[in-house]
Amino acid sequence: MNFISEKAKIGENVKIGKFTVIEEDVEIGENTTIGNNVTIYKGTKIGKNVRIDDNTVIGKQPMRAKNSIFQKEKKEIPPCEIGDNTLIGTSTVIYAGCKIGQNCLIADLATVREDVEIGEMTIIGRGVAVENKTKIGRKCKIETNAYITALSQIGDEVFIAPCVATSNDNSAGREPDRAQKMKGPVIKDKARIGVNATILPGKIINEDAFVGAGAVVTKDVESCKVVIGNPAREK
Amino acid sequence: MNFISEKAKIGENVKIGKFTVIEEDVEIGENTTIGNNVTIYKGTKIGKNVRIDDNTVIGKQPMRAKNSIFQKEKKEIPPCEIGDNTLIGTSTVIYAGCKIGQNCLIADLATVREDVEIGEMTIIGRGVAVENKTKIGRKCKIETNAYITALSQIGDEVFIAPCVATSNDNSAGREPDRAQKMKGPVIKDKARIGVNATILPGKIINEDAFVGAGAVVTKDVESCKVVIGNPAREK
Amino acid sequence: MNFISEKAKIGENVKIGKFTVIEEDVEIGENTTIGNNVTIYKGTKIGKNVRIDDNTVIGKQPMRAKNSIFQKEKKEIPPCEIGDNTLIGTSTVIYAGCKIGQNCLIADLATVREDVEIGEMTIIGRGVAVENKTKIGRKCKIETNAYITALSQIGDEVFIAPCVATSNDNSAGREPDRAQKMKGPVIKDKARIGVNATILPGKIINEDAFVGAGAVVTKDVESCKVVIGNPAREK
Repeated sequence: MNFISEKAKIGENVKIGKFTVIEEDVEIGENTTIGNNVTIYKGTKIGKNVRIDDNTVIGKQPMRAKNSIFQKEKKEIPPCEIGDNTLIGTSTVIYAGCKIGQNCLIADLATVREDVEIGEMTIIGRGVAVENKTKIGRKCKIETNAYITALSQIGDEVFIAPCVATSNDNSAGREPDRAQKMKGPVIKDKARIGVNATILPGKIINEDAFVGAGAVVTKDVESCKVVIGNPAREK
Repeated sequence: MNFISEKAKIGENVKIGKFTVIEEDVEIGENTTIGNNVTIYKGTKIGKNVRIDDNTVIGKQPMRAKNSIFQKEKKEIPPCEIGDNTLIGTSTVIYAGCKIGQNCLIADLATVREDVEIGEMTIIGRGVAVENKTKIGRKCKIETNAYITALSQIGDEVFIAPCVATSNDNSAGREPDRAQKMKGPVIKDKARIGVNATILPGKIINEDAFVGAGAVVTKDVESCKVVIGNPAREK
Repeated sequence: MNFISEKAKIGENVKIGKFTVIEEDVEIGENTTIGNNVTIYKGTKIGKNVRIDDNTVIGKQPMRAKNSIFQKEKKEIPPCEIGDNTLIGTSTVIYAGCKIGQNCLIADLATVREDVEIGEMTIIGRGVAVENKTKIGRKCKIETNAYITALSQIGDEVFIAPCVATSNDNSAGREPDRAQKMKGPVIKDKARIGVNATILPGKIINEDAFVGAGAVVTKDVESCKVVIGNPAREK
């Protein structure tokens, strides 16, 4: 038993589980499989051969806290788009206003916020949070529980190990005009960040650099260099 | 299609999604919106203008493991209360026995355990775990994936950055009487904790102190001081 | 309202919530309680007196990304088995191909992947990810948000504090043959790992050793020794 809008366009050979809600103007390509207890919000565009697992929510509009510094932003965000052959896990939450490429994997319990673009063949691991206004390239691996803060710029073939933490606000929530000053990390092509490393706001990790496990990056890291420790220094 | 108890009191203009279960004696204030696949347990009191997103569970009774040191505690916990205008995300879990103030945001995939009090206008970020017997003041921001251990005391206007980890048990699960010795962190008004910092059991972070990103706090931090490093030292 | 296969074997006095799907050949022992919006995949074997909370998924088949290094592995994994008296939380995801012992607790939002074995009376905390090809002994406590990487070997009565991060790939996603070289951590009986510590690939934490909070373990730790710092050194 499902609630599927008569105004949704469902492709051939699409399989839909039980207790799932699909709103109006949703488009789903052929051979896509959708699980149980899924909600897909209005206007969402889903490609062919996509797999969406149980209890997942696609196309959710953001909530704004009363004291959010983003409170005044536009209220209605355009639908999200999910490319062909992409796999989406269980209890995953994908917001409106993001574009996810072809052949991606967005694993269980991950969240992808609005105004995010993810290139093809990129893996977003289990429990990863990709915050808003972020761009991630192609063939990246963002591993389990990594935290990608708002305003991050991540190149192609980047590897971010499990539990990596990034940040974008040097004032730590203090300055009233911090929304204008926030800077996410810039992580360039083929850079690698080790498990549970910490990246301070606005730091640049250049091409092919390697940040060691548990390092705390307080300065930019040059191309091809390896840094370790707290604070991180060249090895 | 929903299962709504005849003994629930649903206010005017409340919107309820599909496949949602609302048990007996639940009270829901006017203009509240509830998503799909939501479960609200018996006796829960929800204010006006509240938004509860899909797949969220409110008012759950705790489970006790066979070898939990809290095994012998009271079995039935009173219902939870959620204040007016509060927003609750997707796949969020709120236990019985907690009180959440007005104008709060409890984001996606967060969990709030029993015997927790959260002041008004506080934000509990995506994926945050607030453990039991904890008090959090008003206008705090507890950001994505931060871990607030049991027995924490957090003042007003505190900022806890993403991925901060706290602890309460110096014996690390060893001493049989550790339940009596456990001490959560005490984080006083306007203190700020940087991304991925670690706070050892019972440490006091005084008013307006700043713990740097990735710092490991092994001693109390004085008011207005900044500490960084592993172990954390004054800057 | 539920979808329960006629080919499922449901024991006496089993309670099942609403909007739950139970597939064919599932076996559920007597006195087990299952929540709302739950999915239990075909062939899953669940013991007696088990509690499974709302929105949980049991017996899910893994998804393989297009560029997964495990792409070529066997496609169909045998059903999972859950022992008597075990408690499973809300929005938890348990994969096919894992065996969970008796009297365990697998808390809210945890994930347990395929090819995992968990001994009796072990607690897997809220939000913990146990990756594939991992063995965890009996009477362990793996606390909130800890990350147990693939290929981990964890003994009996091990304590892993909240937010601990482990790793298994020294190449950080780089070498094409890394699947053959990966080594998870080996954590022996009664060892204890402090909050937010980081364990590098293949490191051995011997019996009764203690890794301090926030330590970054780059070398094996001897039995009964205490290590702290980044990199971790004997205290």
